[in-house]
Amino acid sequence: MTYNYLLTLCLILVSTKLFSLATGKMQMPQVVGALLAGLILGPGVLGSLTQALFGMQVCLQPSDLLNQLAELGVIVIMFSAGMGTSINDLKSSGKAGFLVALIGVLVPLGMGTLLMRIFNPGGNILSAVFMGTVLTATSVSITVETLKELGKLSTKVGNTILAAALIDDILGLICLTIVTSLAGATVNIALVLLKIVLFFVFVGIVGVLFYRFMVWYDRRVKDQNLHRFPIAAFALCLFMAWAAESLFGVADIIGAFSAGMIVAMTPKGQYISGKFSPLSYLLLTPIFFANIGLKVTLPKMNATFLLFTVLLVAVGILSKLIGCGLGAKLCGFSNRQCLQTGFGMACRGEVALIVANKGMAMNMVESEYFGPIIILVICCAVFTPILLKAAFKGEGAYEGLQSSQLVDNYEASNQVDIVTDRLLRHNQEKQKPNNADKH
Amino acid sequence: MTYNYLLTLCLILVSTKLFSLATGKMQMPQVVGALLAGLILGPGVLGSLTQALFGMQVCLQPSDLLNQLAELGVIVIMFSAGMGTSINDLKSSGKAGFLVALIGVLVPLGMGTLLMRIFNPGGNILSAVFMGTVLTATSVSITVETLKELGKLSTKVGNTILAAALIDDILGLICLTIVTSLAGATVNIALVLLKIVLFFVFVGIVGVLFYRFMVWYDRRVKDQNLHRFPIAAFALCLFMAWAAESLFGVADIIGAFSAGMIVAMTPKGQYISGKFSPLSYLLLTPIFFANIGLKVTLPKMNATFLLFTVLLVAVGILSKLIGCGLGAKLCGFSNRQCLQTGFGMACRGEVALIVANKGMAMNMVESEYFGPIIILVICCAVFTPILLKAAFKGEGAYEGLQSSQLVDNYEASNQVDIVTDRLLRHNQEKQKPNNADKH
Repeated sequence: MTYNYLLTLCLILVSTKLFSLATGKMQMPQVVGALLAGLILGPGVLGSLTQALFGMQVCLQPSDLLNQLAELGVIVIMFSAGMGTSINDLKSSGKAGFLVALIGVLVPLGMGTLLMRIFNPGGNILSAVFMGTVLTATSVSITVETLKELGKLSTKVGNTILAAALIDDILGLICLTIVTSLAGATVNIALVLLKIVLFFVFVGIVGVLFYRFMVWYDRRVKDQNLHRFPIAAFALCLFMAWAAESLFGVADIIGAFSAGMIVAMTPKGQYISGKFSPLSYLLLTPIFFANIGLKVTLPKMNATFLLFTVLLVAVGILSKLIGCGLGAKLCGFSNRQCLQTGFGMACRGEVALIVANKGMAMNMVESEYFGPIIILVICCAVFTPILLKAAFKGEGAYEGLQSSQLVDNYEASNQVDIVTDRLLRHNQEKQKPNNADKH
Repeated sequence: MTYNYLLTLCLILVSTKLFSLATGKMQMPQVVGALLAGLILGPGVLGSLTQALFGMQVCLQPSDLLNQLAELGVIVIMFSAGMGTSINDLKSSGKAGFLVALIGVLVPLGMGTLLMRIFNPGGNILSAVFMGTVLTATSVSITVETLKELGKLSTKVGNTILAAALIDDILGLICLTIVTSLAGATVNIALVLLKIVLFFVFVGIVGVLFYRFMVWYDRRVKDQNLHRFPIAAFALCLFMAWAAESLFGVADIIGAFSAGMIVAMTPKGQYISGKFSPLSYLLLTPIFFANIGLKVTLPKMNATFLLFTVLLVAVGILSKLIGCGLGAKLCGFSNRQCLQTGFGMACRGEVALIVANKGMAMNMVESEYFGPIIILVICCAVFTPILLKAAFKGEGAYEGLQSSQLVDNYEASNQVDIVTDRLLRHNQEKQKPNNADKH
């Protein structure tokens, strides 16, 4: 029996958190920190270094346990993302959000495919489309932080960005569904498309049944038995992920995301979502990202490769600016508002990395392309706040402010945790009457 | 790539919950349900059945993933148990709680060892002591439920039981520490005992350092960054579990339990404890218990074996009754109160199973003895409420009621979850003004 797995998990938790704090301070997404932790403590950097110095690798190593927890991790991350995508919110997102999302997905998809086709003309066409798919999903967390800082989250632009980011996750995942299904298939495209349609019908039927069950059960069960709801939700997530792959040939993460959207509609949706957060940040998310870092091999730097990276970053930002800006223009936004919306949608994050990771697992993205994608994520995160602030420069402090349901919902989910903590603290203080006197 | 692990996890979640609900209805501990789920869906029952009917095993199978998650699961369960054992509560537990716990640990330890020695006279003496150790730890949840039902939780007896159950966990784990360390050692007993002492010194030093760090960090960090506290606590747990085994030759679960006790003292102790609950019930606990069930092989029933099982149950209940009753008598309890205390402490649960499982992993408990231990857990759970109610019969409704800090703390931890849910529901309702009108 060996106990080193305990130390490995401990080091992963501590290092991913420390690196995330460091990248957070540098205005970069925390996932980049977690990736870096794996890269630096793994064979990539520390391993090579100790090999050179002492003649042996002393570093974290990929293992079966880490791989399996990482696999489970990506399922839970996508399930949580699905739970964050409420149908009710989507209904109130309006025409602007939809158009910005749609054109903002199509343009990066096309431009990414084209770029890959130019650099790898002999490769599989689906592999090129996969690179386009990686570019589709927006990550709004950095944009939201920047808009908050500017006091511009509750504006027409802020609201449109939040709505469009919700929708473009779904559109991006539909692209992924089609691409991965085609990649896994032998030849019969009609059958593949039929299976995808059947999958969405299946999601609809399971969704209605599960929703009705939860509404009925919510009325029946007393407050004391709340654990059952997250357990039922997780069982649904695991079942849908399995069913997607095994019955319909659709990626497991799509199944998990759909399960999340179903759960979000149920009466206990927010409560369930809160219970998955610790499962995710205490164990599965750090392992997933550190594990990617552990497996990254630093590619040989040559001129072609460097050029590809620079162009990927440029295409990544420009394609969102063009696509989302065009969508906003069609809805009558001013040129300045189009620019703001475009820059606000340019950030990439977890989903881009998860899609790329899926592509690697399916041999659709060669591992040497993973480096440029990480650099894309970092650059977008660095440039987005700068570009956004420039685009808002000179606007009055209260210009364009409006109330927004989407913004309220986004904020509410962060508050519960803080209230819970205060409540507990209050109880604890009450229990120490003598301590209270000393203060 | 295979996706069957997703379906396996889904089936484990659903079946353990359903079986737990069923055993819960029958006044048995929920862990028994989880064990049964594994036993019935695994090779033991479903496997044998399908083998006989169709000539092939169609059932859940033990796997590397399940084994590793179960190993991590037991660490998290013991960490949570440690977090439930606050030093502040121990201080206010008084002389009665301590004496009841101490004699209530020594008597079962001695009687269990003797029983095993009689049935297996040629065996290892440590293996006999191990069976005694399995009998030491009390599980109070069923007793608490029964006392609540009787309205007798806030009495001298109720308070003594809560206090003694806290302390006997610790005493039982000290026994386990010594037994496992001796079992793992080659010959030098002095060195083993020195290592155990050093381990407790180590726990003390790490505890003080971690406590100071958390107090300092709690003042420094704003409400927004609460995730860091559970992550730091989990890192401590993993580190202590690893250090216990690797540096001191002490069982990993003891390290995890000590880490839990340290965390419970920090300002964010209760908050952290709440965050581990979903990690435990959503993933690790069901897998741990189902995995034990999957690996149980039904022993051949013969007269000796049956006699052993009956005697183990009798010794299990009687030894606690004698030990705890004696402890209560020494503190001036009336005979009736001694009987109440003794029966209240007779229940066994998770910890007994975890200790037995550890013993199997170390080849100290042969797998055929696992069946009788499970039966002991079931019988104690069935008999405790009946015996307790009999012992309280005829007492007036308000007789002996008193306020108690321990009882208040025990109740408080269950309230937060409910409050959180109500808060979320309230927010959701507020967000649907048109729905609200309809009601």
